Amino acid sequence: MAPVLILMGSQSDWPVMQHAAQMLKDLGVAWRAEVVSAHRTPDLLKSSMEQAEQDGVPVVIAGAGGAAHLPGMLAAYTAIPVLGVPVPSKQLKGLDSLLSIVQMPKGVAVGTLAIGQAGAANAGLLAAQMIGVTDAKVRESVKNFRSTQREKVMNGPKLELPDA
Amino acid sequence: MAPVLILMGSQSDWPVMQHAAQMLKDLGVAWRAEVVSAHRTPDLLKSSMEQAEQDGVPVVIAGAGGAAHLPGMLAAYTAIPVLGVPVPSKQLKGLDSLLSIVQMPKGVAVGTLAIGQAGAANAGLLAAQMIGVTDAKVRESVKNFRSTQREKVMNGPKLELPDA
Amino acid sequence: MAPVLILMGSQSDWPVMQHAAQMLKDLGVAWRAEVVSAHRTPDLLKSSMEQAEQDGVPVVIAGAGGAAHLPGMLAAYTAIPVLGVPVPSKQLKGLDSLLSIVQMPKGVAVGTLAIGQAGAANAGLLAAQMIGVTDAKVRESVKNFRSTQREKVMNGPKLELPDA
Amino acid sequence: MAPVLILMGSQSDWPVMQHAAQMLKDLGVAWRAEVVSAHRTPDLLKSSMEQAEQDGVPVVIAGAGGAAHLPGMLAAYTAIPVLGVPVPSKQLKGLDSLLSIVQMPKGVAVGTLAIGQAGAANAGLLAAQMIGVTDAKVRESVKNFRSTQREKVMNGPKLELPDA
Amino acid sequence: MAPVLILMGSQSDWPVMQHAAQMLKDLGVAWRAEVVSAHRTPDLLKSSMEQAEQDGVPVVIAGAGGAAHLPGMLAAYTAIPVLGVPVPSKQLKGLDSLLSIVQMPKGVAVGTLAIGQAGAANAGLLAAQMIGVTDAKVRESVKNFRSTQREKVMNGPKLELPDA
Amino acid sequence: MAPVLILMGSQSDWPVMQHAAQMLKDLGVAWRAEVVSAHRTPDLLKSSMEQAEQDGVPVVIAGAGGAAHLPGMLAAYTAIPVLGVPVPSKQLKGLDSLLSIVQMPKGVAVGTLAIGQAGAANAGLLAAQMIGVTDAKVRESVKNFRSTQREKVMNGPKLELPDA
Amino acid sequence: MAPVLILMGSQSDWPVMQHAAQMLKDLGVAWRAEVVSAHRTPDLLKSSMEQAEQDGVPVVIAGAGGAAHLPGMLAAYTAIPVLGVPVPSKQLKGLDSLLSIVQMPKGVAVGTLAIGQAGAANAGLLAAQMIGVTDAKVRESVKNFRSTQREKVMNGPKLELPDA
Amino acid sequence: MAPVLILMGSQSDWPVMQHAAQMLKDLGVAWRAEVVSAHRTPDLLKSSMEQAEQDGVPVVIAGAGGAAHLPGMLAAYTAIPVLGVPVPSKQLKGLDSLLSIVQMPKGVAVGTLAIGQAGAANAGLLAAQMIGVTDAKVRESVKNFRSTQREKVMNGPKLELPDA
Repeated sequence: MAPVLILMGSQSDWPVMQHAAQMLKDLGVAWRAEVVSAHRTPDLLKSSMEQAEQDGVPVVIAGAGGAAHLPGMLAAYTAIPVLGVPVPSKQLKGLDSLLSIVQMPKGVAVGTLAIGQAGAANAGLLAAQMIGVTDAKVRESVKNFRSTQREKVMNGPKLELPDA
Repeated sequence: MAPVLILMGSQSDWPVMQHAAQMLKDLGVAWRAEVVSAHRTPDLLKSSMEQAEQDGVPVVIAGAGGAAHLPGMLAAYTAIPVLGVPVPSKQLKGLDSLLSIVQMPKGVAVGTLAIGQAGAANAGLLAAQMIGVTDAKVRESVKNFRSTQREKVMNGPKLELPDA
Repeated sequence: MAPVLILMGSQSDWPVMQHAAQMLKDLGVAWRAEVVSAHRTPDLLKSSMEQAEQDGVPVVIAGAGGAAHLPGMLAAYTAIPVLGVPVPSKQLKGLDSLLSIVQMPKGVAVGTLAIGQAGAANAGLLAAQMIGVTDAKVRESVKNFRSTQREKVMNGPKLELPDA
Repeated sequence: MAPVLILMGSQSDWPVMQHAAQMLKDLGVAWRAEVVSAHRTPDLLKSSMEQAEQDGVPVVIAGAGGAAHLPGMLAAYTAIPVLGVPVPSKQLKGLDSLLSIVQMPKGVAVGTLAIGQAGAANAGLLAAQMIGVTDAKVRESVKNFRSTQREKVMNGPKLELPDA
Repeated sequence: MAPVLILMGSQSDWPVMQHAAQMLKDLGVAWRAEVVSAHRTPDLLKSSMEQAEQDGVPVVIAGAGGAAHLPGMLAAYTAIPVLGVPVPSKQLKGLDSLLSIVQMPKGVAVGTLAIGQAGAANAGLLAAQMIGVTDAKVRESVKNFRSTQREKVMNGPKLELPDA
Repeated sequence: MAPVLILMGSQSDWPVMQHAAQMLKDLGVAWRAEVVSAHRTPDLLKSSMEQAEQDGVPVVIAGAGGAAHLPGMLAAYTAIPVLGVPVPSKQLKGLDSLLSIVQMPKGVAVGTLAIGQAGAANAGLLAAQMIGVTDAKVRESVKNFRSTQREKVMNGPKLELPDA
Repeated sequence: MAPVLILMGSQSDWPVMQHAAQMLKDLGVAWRAEVVSAHRTPDLLKSSMEQAEQDGVPVVIAGAGGAAHLPGMLAAYTAIPVLGVPVPSKQLKGLDSLLSIVQMPKGVAVGTLAIGQAGAANAGLLAAQMIGVTDAKVRESVKNFRSTQREKVMNGPKLELPDA
Repeated sequence: MAPVLILMGSQSDWPVMQHAAQMLKDLGVAWRAEVVSAHRTPDLLKSSMEQAEQDGVPVVIAGAGGAAHLPGMLAAYTAIPVLGVPVPSKQLKGLDSLLSIVQMPKGVAVGTLAIGQAGAANAGLLAAQMIGVTDAKVRESVKNFRSTQREKVMNGPKLELPDA
């Protein structure tokens, strides 16, 4: 299976979006990351999706901030499922990014995750879950990841008040 | 393949959520819909997901309004991908539903769609796209749906000012 | 000079966007209106802007609602100035449309007007003002429009309390 | 009487939630604190509430951030009164946490306090007030706490402008 | 035990607040409702709470809209636990009411419920849960109410698409 | 004439509220500042306003944060005009303070200024303007202040790009 | 004393702003109302304020909606105290009007009231309170108004549940 | 052609607004920048626009924060197209500035850009695009700028995970 494709609107989104890559890596899923700007390189929108379809990419993860058009525009050019990650914006803290990504009209869909790093990591996780539907090994990785985090919660330190 | 499972927090969410069912039906994907309330029937969260895993359900679509816990709680109990639909709430118009569904912490993911009917329809569409990754017939349906809506836009009536 | 081009994401935006057309007509500026959906007809984005550049269109007015990508994507494909009109959305009343249009990243600009009919009318007015910079007749029309509305304010009826 | 039970979605919520514990301690009310994640350890939701009912826990205080499902899910599993504390989230500053906790549907209730440390402290205070309805000693502690804070306000330093 | 006291800022809040009364009645808990306006009858704040303490009122439920000061001011005058219900406001739909009630400073607490009728009903429910901690009969009523609503969900009608 | 009375909900509001005092001092208007907490010292609300009426205080300036009840509650106890200053809150940046102060119901009014230091300074300025209606000397001070700030704007440094 | 001057940005604001006039009339204070549009008749801003100063107008009440510049611009041209009323806007329900009026920079102040009719009525009330500082008869009217509304609250009908 | 006129409400807005000047300089378009405060120097509004019309200024760029009245008031005094830049405010992060600038009523238009530096740079860019409609050299500069930024995106560094 081709690697999951991680696209983002700007080089500066990588510190957020790398959490998607890291999660995929941790779950044993191959990935490839590139910058495609909906506004600065609009011609890449179509060509990147055509290439992705040809390559057999199973999921596209796209992150962008502010008037975040990348995920929705990629979804307009492909039938591959697209997951969107709202990157925090400087002033409005990603509320603009979230609404720009999630409020898609009927007929073109983006599965949107939380604002910022948690959302990027969960985009990787959800991509793995999607692959896991038909790939037992990845499904197993997801279940192991879940067990591990469950155990971490259950084995955390005792909660105590600091000394006065 | 087992039908896509559409769950919602209340009977009163069906007028919104039926748009997911309709889209799936239009794309030739089987579905099954039920009411599971995270708050009123919490025991069904786990059992419904265990049943879904056993049945081989490929995607779960969950809609809820207000403090919309259903999608996130289902995601907590399964490795099947979960898509969330924020149902409009009476006072805050679904902004509460949206934030309650999309702002999941790292480690449990919900792919969130737009508030209301458009989001429900797109949840059905995205589910079909996910199935289409490995099912050529469904992939074809999605592409046909896309072509049809493209043509509808291109063959719309001429835009004219009303007579003074 | 070629007509001002008015584009919108959906036929259903015309009741709002026709106020741009009406204002242009009232100011003696030619216009042409079409539906181009960023999401349903993405290939039209580039071709419509190439055609507009070839035709010598002086301003593009674009209206869209929700995750309103149309104005920003048109701006990505042309050096013609683009004005954006946030069309009211069903649940969030156009706040999503506004943020999706106005919060463009550095390097691709959209001059954004108010949400709804007032914004559409003002997009027509601002387009006329832009044309008026080098076209004395249109500039005159704008000034007359301004005088007329000033006089309407000044000759309004006396404000009185209703009878008890 | 069994200690008040303080639960939180993550170890990282303790710096906020310890203000509930501190307030209870200051008022002479016993408490016990643990991490229970609605999403990462969903099976603990029911078991922790069954244990609490068996122990005779008089109030549950639950804090969580983002899509904060913990308080509402605990309330779904018990008839013990549940108080919710919205923990500040990184981007939306706890507005998401607040709406996710307070906007519960009819039939399952969470008494919600302010975002952050003040809310955590007040959850401890309100728990003590609830216990104080039938426990005269705790009621006295609350009244003393109130007197003390009233006197602090009344004996504060004189308010003067800084030297120019 | 004295009846639960339901106070509201205005006669016009009763259509919302009566849902608290109805819930209490359904659960077999006595109640008494009155209008006390924080702004128009401030002297009643203190006297009503002194009377309530003397009567042995176990919980106060207070609803108000807009700059909703009633719940917080009642809490300032008593050690009886106070629950607050944000009544929907005409323009801001109760977001102002919610923030005015829930964002109390450290030292005076209001347990806040959802905006509107659901919140009012849940204030009644939470009051009953609080009473149920020491009153087995009321605790039983709450559990029965919960069972009934669980069964209603589970026995709802089949979800079907309308005929085309 | 008695000094303008500046009240605030907490000692910690003084760094914001001292800008009201400073403005009054700069305009030659006497002032007095005290902490009165609506929630922690509710009995002072009435007594402070009775004293103010007796003293002939011409304006009350009140600042508070979060569920900011102080300005509205003072207004409930007096016919002296009350100006409100929303003090920035830690998480919601004063949006809660603003709505809690400004959204007063018909019948009790608070003239609300901007969030934070600018609002505090302007409360002092508006108080002086109110006094200036019948006090020519203060009116003159206000006009001088206005001239001075106008000249500062007009004599500002030239705006130049930094060296590359 | 000259009448209180009530200005508004548009004839269509009168249904809201007449509540200021009505309140002033009820309190025995003379008023005069006119339309002055900051945007459509900017030259009237200065001339109306010069006339008001010459006439001895004691307070200006200004209402506007959307990008509501009228109150702040009037305040820029006069030392007479200006009260602002945010008129509800079609889409954003007056949140835009409120922020445009209240968030004035240091140096020019507008005392802002609530969004809509309640705010307009309270602007009339606050104007009367300001006049009442030096006019015993108006002060008496305000106190009578307060007594009347207090009595209305206290003599309201009994609150009863509707028959089942 | 006369230089583009960049106006701002305060000297302190220059760190944001200089990005408009820099962009114009980079595109070979002359500019001139000055402080004009709508509130502190209202008489300059009209005189600066009369001068601009006389000079043949092709576009006015205006930036302001909070209750940002400058762009709208300049637009009220001229038929020259006005672009508005919302300068970030201290507490509300420019949401107030944005709504105050963009929500203009029908009849007076401001083309609004994004909050902050990106918006200021884009105001310069859009001004150049407007000039470029009739000035081939500036149009060429814009196209070169676009090519350069496209190439920067396409030649960015490879995206790699940091070493563990």
